[in-house]
Amino acid sequence: MQVITSYGVGRVLNSGHPGYKKGDLVWGTTGCEEYSLITEPETLFKIPDTDVPLSYYLGVLGMPGLTAYVGFYDFCAPKKGENVFISSAFGAVGQLVGQLAKLMRCYVVGSAGSKEKVDLLKNKLGFDDAFNYKEEKNLGEALKRYFPEGIDIFFDNVGGKIIDAVLLNMRLHGRIALCGMVSQYPLDDPEGIKNLMCIIYQRLRVEGFVVFDCFHLFPKFWDFMLPYIREGKIACVEDIAEGLDSCPAALEGLFTGRNLGKKVIIVSQE
Amino acid sequence: MQVITSYGVGRVLNSGHPGYKKGDLVWGTTGCEEYSLITEPETLFKIPDTDVPLSYYLGVLGMPGLTAYVGFYDFCAPKKGENVFISSAFGAVGQLVGQLAKLMRCYVVGSAGSKEKVDLLKNKLGFDDAFNYKEEKNLGEALKRYFPEGIDIFFDNVGGKIIDAVLLNMRLHGRIALCGMVSQYPLDDPEGIKNLMCIIYQRLRVEGFVVFDCFHLFPKFWDFMLPYIREGKIACVEDIAEGLDSCPAALEGLFTGRNLGKKVIIVSQE
Repeated sequence: MQVITSYGVGRVLNSGHPGYKKGDLVWGTTGCEEYSLITEPETLFKIPDTDVPLSYYLGVLGMPGLTAYVGFYDFCAPKKGENVFISSAFGAVGQLVGQLAKLMRCYVVGSAGSKEKVDLLKNKLGFDDAFNYKEEKNLGEALKRYFPEGIDIFFDNVGGKIIDAVLLNMRLHGRIALCGMVSQYPLDDPEGIKNLMCIIYQRLRVEGFVVFDCFHLFPKFWDFMLPYIREGKIACVEDIAEGLDSCPAALEGLFTGRNLGKKVIIVSQE
Repeated sequence: MQVITSYGVGRVLNSGHPGYKKGDLVWGTTGCEEYSLITEPETLFKIPDTDVPLSYYLGVLGMPGLTAYVGFYDFCAPKKGENVFISSAFGAVGQLVGQLAKLMRCYVVGSAGSKEKVDLLKNKLGFDDAFNYKEEKNLGEALKRYFPEGIDIFFDNVGGKIIDAVLLNMRLHGRIALCGMVSQYPLDDPEGIKNLMCIIYQRLRVEGFVVFDCFHLFPKFWDFMLPYIREGKIACVEDIAEGLDSCPAALEGLFTGRNLGKKVIIVSQE
């Protein structure tokens, strides 16, 4: 039987590994199941701080959190007050990138796929503005409206035609961090991007990164992030479902845009 | 009457500017004409070293030379022994990028549009290999043949479909410097690039640059380059025509690939 794996939080019931003992709280790669046999303990991390919800280790304190942290600070090279655009801004990564950008007093606009997400970006997560890309006939024009002076930083989780629209609106020496291309994964034939000329005209830097390269940064990241979470300066919107049965729908929701923030499935409260 | 401007080398006949006196040799933006009235002397540079052919200040010691120097060292961030691919490799910029890469003991392959250029790249300019892109049905397959272990650095003067082919062949943490897109300038509708996903998978950095931002580096560049030229360690292939009448054909040759190296038009030997 093939078990679907995902990131999970759990408690150690038994351990033959000297680094883990019964009762330890851990997060990492687990099966989507009630009890997991972990044969590669190097994929686990111990949870030292339990004064925040444990599910945060799946989102804002986990892989999506580190993705946002590394992507924004290392690859976007942000400067105070710059203009930042984030696609799929209400996703687990986008939420945090926007809030990190606000901590640097940037002007932050996000795109998302529903009115509800747009409202939450503006009213709960502190984005300066947000728009529903599905309601925009011309993404380039929309971006010109939100960024009349252009975009310094584009943090992209989506790929495809949004890149073309952004390229037309980038400022000199802008930076584009390519984090994911969720719009393109389901396509056999990816969309063609036509405005790469802007990379030359505007002297842009485009970089792709993968968070798996950066796991050694988790301790530094937690030291940075935990105080903000404890002080309520960083919010975390989770979309919580109960029971293993909700796994398939949750996975589908990633690609249909139905999940509202970081999708968490509670297998058991204990 | 509209005068076509270009880069030219000339001798000052008369000057009302304290920085220039009769007899000085200069290069910079001039008209395509026998005598030019320079109203913006900040576009001129004095020629201090006349032990090299004056025409070199239009190519290997001029704007194309600085483009190669800045693009390769600053934007490609080369390491000794890396795999380097250059498109339009026999152009004024590409020639020099390849030779700079060989100075760093890189493995260097260039693409060009004729057998004659390919032969010169291999036999006169020291490229490890070169190919005629017009004879390759599948550019991605061609690159896989020349770079079985992948490409670390792509210096692109061409744009369009070559980028897609290269993206499929880049190594982890590779760098792509976008210098020009000569294949795309004549098109109303640029070609779509489909393989941007590789920028994420392979953790690539893509940067565009414009040499006009770097003119302050000319003195440093000349200090670096002149010894190599004097010692014959850097070659410079020029395509020389006589007489102003050859201007239109020279310009057309830029876009049809007919020029064989840096195009120089001799208006007068004195």
